[in-house]
Amino acid sequence: MDKHVQGTPPRVVIVGGGFGGLETAKRLKRSGVQVTLVDKRNYHLFQPLLYQVATGGLSPANIATPLRSILRRQKNCQVIMAEVVDFDVAQQKLYLADGQIDYDFLIVSAGATHSYFGNDAWEPMAPGLKTLQDATEIRRRIYSAFEAAERELDPARREALMTFVVVGGGPTGVELAGALAEIAGHTLKHDFRQINPQDAKILLVEAAEHVLAHYPAELCSRAEAKIRSLGIQVLTQTKVTDVRPEQVHLSGPTGESVIATQNVVWAAGVRGNPLGQKLAQTCQVELDRAGRVPVSASLRVEGQENVFVIGDLANCPGPNGRPLPGLAPVAIQQGRYVANAIASQIAGKAVSEPFSYYDRGSMATIGRAAAVAQIGKRQFCGLLAWIMWLTIHLMLIVQFQNRVLILMQWAWNYITFNRSARLIIEDRTPKTSG
Amino acid sequence: MDKHVQGTPPRVVIVGGGFGGLETAKRLKRSGVQVTLVDKRNYHLFQPLLYQVATGGLSPANIATPLRSILRRQKNCQVIMAEVVDFDVAQQKLYLADGQIDYDFLIVSAGATHSYFGNDAWEPMAPGLKTLQDATEIRRRIYSAFEAAERELDPARREALMTFVVVGGGPTGVELAGALAEIAGHTLKHDFRQINPQDAKILLVEAAEHVLAHYPAELCSRAEAKIRSLGIQVLTQTKVTDVRPEQVHLSGPTGESVIATQNVVWAAGVRGNPLGQKLAQTCQVELDRAGRVPVSASLRVEGQENVFVIGDLANCPGPNGRPLPGLAPVAIQQGRYVANAIASQIAGKAVSEPFSYYDRGSMATIGRAAAVAQIGKRQFCGLLAWIMWLTIHLMLIVQFQNRVLILMQWAWNYITFNRSARLIIEDRTPKTSG
Repeated sequence: MDKHVQGTPPRVVIVGGGFGGLETAKRLKRSGVQVTLVDKRNYHLFQPLLYQVATGGLSPANIATPLRSILRRQKNCQVIMAEVVDFDVAQQKLYLADGQIDYDFLIVSAGATHSYFGNDAWEPMAPGLKTLQDATEIRRRIYSAFEAAERELDPARREALMTFVVVGGGPTGVELAGALAEIAGHTLKHDFRQINPQDAKILLVEAAEHVLAHYPAELCSRAEAKIRSLGIQVLTQTKVTDVRPEQVHLSGPTGESVIATQNVVWAAGVRGNPLGQKLAQTCQVELDRAGRVPVSASLRVEGQENVFVIGDLANCPGPNGRPLPGLAPVAIQQGRYVANAIASQIAGKAVSEPFSYYDRGSMATIGRAAAVAQIGKRQFCGLLAWIMWLTIHLMLIVQFQNRVLILMQWAWNYITFNRSARLIIEDRTPKTSG
Repeated sequence: MDKHVQGTPPRVVIVGGGFGGLETAKRLKRSGVQVTLVDKRNYHLFQPLLYQVATGGLSPANIATPLRSILRRQKNCQVIMAEVVDFDVAQQKLYLADGQIDYDFLIVSAGATHSYFGNDAWEPMAPGLKTLQDATEIRRRIYSAFEAAERELDPARREALMTFVVVGGGPTGVELAGALAEIAGHTLKHDFRQINPQDAKILLVEAAEHVLAHYPAELCSRAEAKIRSLGIQVLTQTKVTDVRPEQVHLSGPTGESVIATQNVVWAAGVRGNPLGQKLAQTCQVELDRAGRVPVSASLRVEGQENVFVIGDLANCPGPNGRPLPGLAPVAIQQGRYVANAIASQIAGKAVSEPFSYYDRGSMATIGRAAAVAQIGKRQFCGLLAWIMWLTIHLMLIVQFQNRVLILMQWAWNYITFNRSARLIIEDRTPKTSG
């Protein structure tokens, strides 16, 4: 704080405009600080619905809102679209790809990326789902596979084109597999002449004993039954041992197997944004195994009074001793906490209470009109859970407009089994990109 | 026709699923032929609204509908997503990048691309607007320019970042310039802290004496007045003599000038799809100067009984001797005509009437709530013309869903001056593209 010039408002710099960063910025509205939100993208992404873009149910703009638009009325906040490349906590600076910023308080909420557990070479064959580009790329691959299958004369190659392997049985994997089953079974039903899209094989591969393993055992098995009823093959206790251009190698309870497939989606693991490494270096702390920055009960990095890490990038111990999961509600509550902590610190008040996460429950959809939900000690499954899921997700979406449009799009998709955004859009050719 | 096997339905192959090709396919529903529609994209694009995607008002999926989805119920029609690379009219074949197709009747409706009049090197600096990729790229450039201006300290570079040059005063150029004026004047009004988006300079450059030169003189001058009232600088009788990375060189009535700008959009000229050249070669005809294939009054290529060219790729003389313009209604009416001509030819009926275009009129929007329209001999300008424009464009959009969603999106945008789809989305990095 020694660099802070008396008389000017303290400078709070937030890295990342996800759920945590955005909440922090908003909560600092009336705290007398100058907020700078830095993000390499110009929008806030509603990540829980990213799988809907990847499967053609929603358009990118339905789940992405310009950060400037959200914060336009907050005069003490400026948004900078820039890439952060490093930090220097001794100098209270962060370095951008093309500049630098001084701070009095730093909040790093740079999120997570997918992890291939040391097998980064798999990425081109098995893209993960973290960004809008990932989503439109997966969408392109899914619909291109059906197009290619329609023209393929060799039955084995045709089968490989119509085999979809989703790696990872967490909420994202389950949601993707469910959406794929709906595409194959309903959306594309009448669209092809040479193939029957219902012949598509969808495999959901999970290393643990159950899919949705974070849910109570009973809910898990009901979810699994529902997933199987959609025609999805669920392979639990099964590990991916290799991914090659047209093959996935599996190792499961019945031994080794090789699946011929052209379509693999990776929903298996996440690791902290590489910026965590830079922050850990300057703070002289160690990252955890998932690449997250360990934080204290007040969400500060060890030894730093004015550096906070929140959201998916933070390793923040939960009540059971395990790190809190990478969920939007965790990040939002942490953002709120940090905004209050900064306001208290400026006001010279006593050290605030430690952060504690209030778990309102969690839920995941399984295809059409089915979901599982855990709210406190109560468990829900099926249509009721799905309606709850729909309601809560609509409520959470930042902008009113998107909420209405998404509801209409969903209503339409639900009635017609349609997915209107199933566009195959290639990147522009280098010739025309400036 | 000698290759046609008796007893099997004649094979009609349509190249391109734009307005003309799609109309032909639909009209052949009950004509006893087997239709194959080949397109390198999996969707029909509603090109008249492409400028709305380029300026963030609509999402790509709002104006693109999967071809399979449109034709799913038409059992005599199959859709093939493939790239046509050549034709052989003697063999009645067309060659794909990965295969070949035999035909009895061929309709080529492959459309047009932008023309730099021999200066193709300008393309990276001055992208044209013909595809969804073009539109999202222009959108990325527009909003990135404001982001960069916000962080630019050098006033001259900042001004260059906030200077937008639209080359070409036809409907697309006017619509783009009008949308840019609305973005700068309203949409982004409260979004920035260092710059005032209203300082943006928008130039509309047109080589002819007036913008919208195809409209009657009185309508032209009213449109021009309206455009100027939006703060757009209209430079008529002005030619672009060079485009360089951060400059546009102009030559006009007052001499030469150089505009420092980082944002140039090319809406000046079109030429026929390069496939026209391939077709002309195998048919031994000459393309016109705009790269279009000359067709007879029955839309056939000279010397070919069973090869038709329609839409933007055809040079079809209009009543005044000049080629018909590249408009959706022309292509649609030509598609209808060709479908009838093929049905007649199969039925062995006498040669049908020559094609004649029924001109229902034309219209163009100028920013917010203003348009010009010519319906028969009547002329409209302002709000009434805009309401007509809105109504007709909504009616034309293929799918019911898109119509409702677009109307809602427009209503919302109109009330709030918002543009919700203003996402800056980079292409995926090579690392992650498969």
